[in-house]
Amino acid sequence: MSSKFYAVVAGAGPGTGRAVALRFAKAYPVVLLARTPDSYQSTVAEINQSGGRAIGISTDTSDVKSVASAFEAITKELSGLKLAAAIYNVGSGYKRKPFLELDVEDFDASVNPNARGLFNFAQKAIPLLLEAVPESEHPPTLLITGATASARGSALFSTIAAGMSARRAIGQSLAREFGPKGVHVAHAIIDGVIDIPRTAAFFADDGVEDRKLSANAIADSYWHLHTQHRSAFTQEIDMRPYVEKF
Amino acid sequence: MSSKFYAVVAGAGPGTGRAVALRFAKAYPVVLLARTPDSYQSTVAEINQSGGRAIGISTDTSDVKSVASAFEAITKELSGLKLAAAIYNVGSGYKRKPFLELDVEDFDASVNPNARGLFNFAQKAIPLLLEAVPESEHPPTLLITGATASARGSALFSTIAAGMSARRAIGQSLAREFGPKGVHVAHAIIDGVIDIPRTAAFFADDGVEDRKLSANAIADSYWHLHTQHRSAFTQEIDMRPYVEKF
Amino acid sequence: MSSKFYAVVAGAGPGTGRAVALRFAKAYPVVLLARTPDSYQSTVAEINQSGGRAIGISTDTSDVKSVASAFEAITKELSGLKLAAAIYNVGSGYKRKPFLELDVEDFDASVNPNARGLFNFAQKAIPLLLEAVPESEHPPTLLITGATASARGSALFSTIAAGMSARRAIGQSLAREFGPKGVHVAHAIIDGVIDIPRTAAFFADDGVEDRKLSANAIADSYWHLHTQHRSAFTQEIDMRPYVEKF
Amino acid sequence: MSSKFYAVVAGAGPGTGRAVALRFAKAYPVVLLARTPDSYQSTVAEINQSGGRAIGISTDTSDVKSVASAFEAITKELSGLKLAAAIYNVGSGYKRKPFLELDVEDFDASVNPNARGLFNFAQKAIPLLLEAVPESEHPPTLLITGATASARGSALFSTIAAGMSARRAIGQSLAREFGPKGVHVAHAIIDGVIDIPRTAAFFADDGVEDRKLSANAIADSYWHLHTQHRSAFTQEIDMRPYVEKF
Repeated sequence: MSSKFYAVVAGAGPGTGRAVALRFAKAYPVVLLARTPDSYQSTVAEINQSGGRAIGISTDTSDVKSVASAFEAITKELSGLKLAAAIYNVGSGYKRKPFLELDVEDFDASVNPNARGLFNFAQKAIPLLLEAVPESEHPPTLLITGATASARGSALFSTIAAGMSARRAIGQSLAREFGPKGVHVAHAIIDGVIDIPRTAAFFADDGVEDRKLSANAIADSYWHLHTQHRSAFTQEIDMRPYVEKF
Repeated sequence: MSSKFYAVVAGAGPGTGRAVALRFAKAYPVVLLARTPDSYQSTVAEINQSGGRAIGISTDTSDVKSVASAFEAITKELSGLKLAAAIYNVGSGYKRKPFLELDVEDFDASVNPNARGLFNFAQKAIPLLLEAVPESEHPPTLLITGATASARGSALFSTIAAGMSARRAIGQSLAREFGPKGVHVAHAIIDGVIDIPRTAAFFADDGVEDRKLSANAIADSYWHLHTQHRSAFTQEIDMRPYVEKF
Repeated sequence: MSSKFYAVVAGAGPGTGRAVALRFAKAYPVVLLARTPDSYQSTVAEINQSGGRAIGISTDTSDVKSVASAFEAITKELSGLKLAAAIYNVGSGYKRKPFLELDVEDFDASVNPNARGLFNFAQKAIPLLLEAVPESEHPPTLLITGATASARGSALFSTIAAGMSARRAIGQSLAREFGPKGVHVAHAIIDGVIDIPRTAAFFADDGVEDRKLSANAIADSYWHLHTQHRSAFTQEIDMRPYVEKF
Repeated sequence: MSSKFYAVVAGAGPGTGRAVALRFAKAYPVVLLARTPDSYQSTVAEINQSGGRAIGISTDTSDVKSVASAFEAITKELSGLKLAAAIYNVGSGYKRKPFLELDVEDFDASVNPNARGLFNFAQKAIPLLLEAVPESEHPPTLLITGATASARGSALFSTIAAGMSARRAIGQSLAREFGPKGVHVAHAIIDGVIDIPRTAAFFADDGVEDRKLSANAIADSYWHLHTQHRSAFTQEIDMRPYVEKF
């Protein structure tokens, strides 16, 4: 592969992260970030073995130093290449609990990865995306994974809604600030359960096919967003299974 | 072309309608509906001459009989084929006027094509899309073109906002009713000026490239929506030029 | 009562219309509009007998001539008074039916009263509200009753969602055009069942108190909206029973 | 004053906080929370001197211990009284800066007071509000002050939008969880500049009267929200000057 560009996926574990990494690896070398190697190792190996190029870096996006050190490693390792796409897909462990059983650590446990982490990640990714604007085939893109809770606070979802709403607000702000400079910032509301090993048992018995989102289908739409012409940028897209109530 | 499926584009005039017809004609025979042949003739000819298949039918979608007669002609002409995609792109002549200078004919002139027409069109298209569910490669799709006024009523935009908001509401209702039956209903908010002959003079002097939406770029996203897997349907997407204020 | 101002309530039947008329009658002479005298007669009598002043006029707001003739009668009858508040509360008979069992008459049956009627009513009311701006104690107000379907199209709700979304869009447009001229335009999303004779059987057995909206409670909030200072106008408010899912 | 209930206002400085405290003090003893006595002292004195009852407590709502200690002091000081209304009005110092000139401390400086502080405050206030449900004249109420940035991320507003969107999401979650238990949770989007000493110079020369929100007008609407019947709770209200663009 002789691309002059690369992509970075933060939150590269099983599900959307892995599928997006595989999809973008068809066009670009890909950097996978996750808190622990367990989350990215097998995908990195798979890409490298099938003729692509991938690197994994253990990173805690809610820690500004960890993000800085990851991007130092990236620009050293991929020196000469430019950043065409940055995907923020970090997910939090979410606790579905009555509000009065939560404590402030639960609040932080959502806001840190879901919003503060995006803030840190964007601080490092956007300058690199801006550098790619004059040369890249597709407009340099920051894609942000959202969820139902990004647009609505529900009972028992206060902490996740706080973190994901903040995340969406950051995405909107960045789209409005950096769109005119040629960087495409888009936010995807993934409204439903994704079909990954962890969710294998969900809806197992209801007999409805395609009841859970295919991570590859999500990745196809992410790739499409990346390839949109700058005269027709999407800022927000939703995706949900055809049978999902909404 | 040996497709077993076809597409129908209502509002097939210059701009989005024509571009979408050309894009879908790469995969399907395409039916172009517009009030007068002027709007579709050259596109029909272009598709037929370049190896595709196209038919044009003069139709006033706000007239239930006209729509019925168009679909009769379609099912006769394309007998044996099934409907894979129906695009509602009919646009109204919009009068930007202070509210107190409008009269009720201006209200009707927006609501009839923008909302009543979609109602009539969907009444005929959805049964055909449902028939295609078991066989079509991509989920049968009803795509609806919206605008800024679909989501917001602004000063001097009361009539267009009324019609376009009603249109969006119909789209949401249909998505919720027919999604679970396998028909994908999506609404696109096109937020900005489309680059067509009629808008050639808009922003002519500001020196900003790609200031107006490329109709082909819109058509690419419509095609992507059509190809989405049913586990990850998008209901609403926005598109706007990178420099657009929003 | 020696008020120099009056109020007009369109859609003055049992429920919100009647309660709003009674509430505003404490401060102003009130005109009640409804399609038939049955809807307003008893409320008019009640107001007149208890020391207030009320007039009823049979009006079909979706008919521009009927609205014109009502406002002619009003300005003759209440000559010398100015319009302080106009409330649009006309409701449609709504048919909850699968989309493919509807026909275009069902579409019209929603859009005509819900949106076209507001258009007609506002055409006549706004010039009168503008005249009251310099003198009225509270900013002259146009209040519009909305519903769940005003903000969301649900399965089986396509026609009502079309009409109510159009109505809300008109309200937003008018707020943005006439707010700066001193007329307060507000829209209330009433999300739930109102406690009126027609709904007596709804939830009859669930044992939950105050399960249905009190029309008087709605009227209290309408009156509050009317009295808001022009430096702090509300454009949209929602109201729902404490136990309502949303 | 012999009320069996009291109110607490967090963020009781000049502007909305002070005005709300004065308004609620007409009915209840009021507790004013602010980071420093400067913010509440004069209002506390004013209330006590004019026949009401007020207490001020220095509190940093983003610090869980500070909030706990404030509520300990409150329940000791006002022992025997129940909490009828809790208002969260804490505002952050907002830095309007290009995204790439911010750092993560700016993110925290918004999220801590705007969202984490509400989380902490609600953890302590809601159990007290629930206790008041069976007895209070008006449904016990948690009122949350929002802003334009609560519903929209704009260029240069990324951090404030993150914090305020998270705050709104918490409010929605609490409304849905505690509404059915009788506690009214409402969020007010204050869209515009409030007329306080700090903003005296804003729009000073444009000659438009009432160009800035009157804090007393906001307080009137907060009081109205507090008095709403539980069959007709408002969850969200917006307020803006009549001349505000939106």
